[in-house]
This record gives sequence, structure tokens and C-alpha cells, in this order.
Amino acid sequence: MEEQIDSVGKAFVDHYYHLFDNDRKAMSSLYQPTSMLTFEGQKLQGVEDIITKLTQLPFDQCRHVISTVDSQPASVTGGIVVFVSGSLQLPGENHPLQFSQMFHLSPTPQGNFFVLNDIFRLNY
Amino acid sequence: MEEQIDSVGKAFVDHYYHLFDNDRKAMSSLYQPTSMLTFEGQKLQGVEDIITKLTQLPFDQCRHVISTVDSQPASVTGGIVVFVSGSLQLPGENHPLQFSQMFHLSPTPQGNFFVLNDIFRLNY
Repeated sequence: MEEQIDSVGKAFVDHYYHLFDNDRKAMSSLYQPTSMLTFEGQKLQGVEDIITKLTQLPFDQCRHVISTVDSQPASVTGGIVVFVSGSLQLPGENHPLQFSQMFHLSPTPQGNFFVLNDIFRLNY
Repeated sequence: MEEQIDSVGKAFVDHYYHLFDNDRKAMSSLYQPTSMLTFEGQKLQGVEDIITKLTQLPFDQCRHVISTVDSQPASVTGGIVVFVSGSLQLPGENHPLQFSQMFHLSPTPQGNFFVLNDIFRLNY
């Protein structure tokens, strides 16, 4: 069970940042109307507002490099919390930016997960 | 509602780190048998194992300084996720350690919260 949680967390993280770095609009598949994103303190809710925020960030290309992924079962209802640390390389920047991010994944009736909670912070 | 979530998150964070820095054993009041802590990748579950870990960290005195607290409602059942960034000052160390930590707070029948999920990472 514990290994399964870790696998789901890691697979989600790979998928999330692959989409972020390669096809940001397609991240709409990860969110639902109840989803919340707090990005550097700015609060957004719902697929449209979240994707608008993510696609309008002031850089087109980026590359996330993941350092750690920690996952835990979030409740008896099948949710998972995932905590990520890593770095973000932006074009024209010599030094990557360190970031931390947490996700609360909620199960769908189809047996997948969507992102219910998403909180992102750069580490200064 | 949103402001209430923020208030609960901030009050919890103040309480958590106040106990951590002043009376670490008393943190047992924050956890329950289902609680999980992942501390720098090490997984612990239940009040006893978590408090043993926290009280046996290789420093007696410490001081947490909080930089950011982001909170979101975690579900329709009244949970809250809280994401913290800050620094940890240890005795004899010139430079504070940067850390990030996330909590999933779950409501109790008495109207309080306990820590269901707790994930801590130093930021290198």
C-alpha cells in the first residue's frame, strides 16, 4: 500500500511537470471545477482560472528538475498528498530557481486522480 | 470562508512551531494514531513514533521563523491543507536552514483539528 502511494505520487509528478514543460494548456486535464491553486500567494480556483494563470506566466519555456517527492495517503477516501522540491530552469537565466510545491490528489469515479489542492512557492 | 481558512492555518502554524521551539513533547496533542509524518524522507506513523522522532532530533533548542503560510480547504469534510516556508535557526549555527513543510489538518468531533499529514523538507 505504501509503495503504491509512492508510485502514484511519483507518476503524477512526472506527468504534471512533463505537461508543464511541454504542453501547458493540456494541464486542464489535471484540474476540475473545485480545484484550487495558490501560486506565490495568489489564489485561483477552477480549471479556467488556473490554466489562464499557468499559461500566462512570464516565460514560455521552462524545465523543472525534481529533487524530492514525498507522498502519503490523505484520508480513508483515497486521496493522496504529494510534496515536491526541485528547481526551475528558465530561458536566459544562469541559475535555476528553487521551488517547493504540494498537491492534494483526489480520486475520480473513473479511478484516476485530479488535483484538488495545489500550492506553489519559490524558495528564496 | 476563505479568510477563516487563512486564520485557522496561521493560528495552527503559530501554535505548532511555538510548541516545537518551546515544548516539543507537548506536540503529542497535535497528532492522532492515524497521523503520518515524513521527515526528510523518513516515514513515521502514530503519535508515539512521531513524537519520538521529533524529540530525538539532534538539537535541543531551535527557533523557527516563518516566511509564508498558504492555506486551502482540503475537502467538503472540513479539512485544511497548509503549506509553510521558513527558516530554522539551530544553536551554534551561523546560518539558518531553509525549510518547507506541509500539513493536512483534519477536523475532530470536538471542533478542533489534528495533523493527519505532515511532510518536512530542508531546502538545499
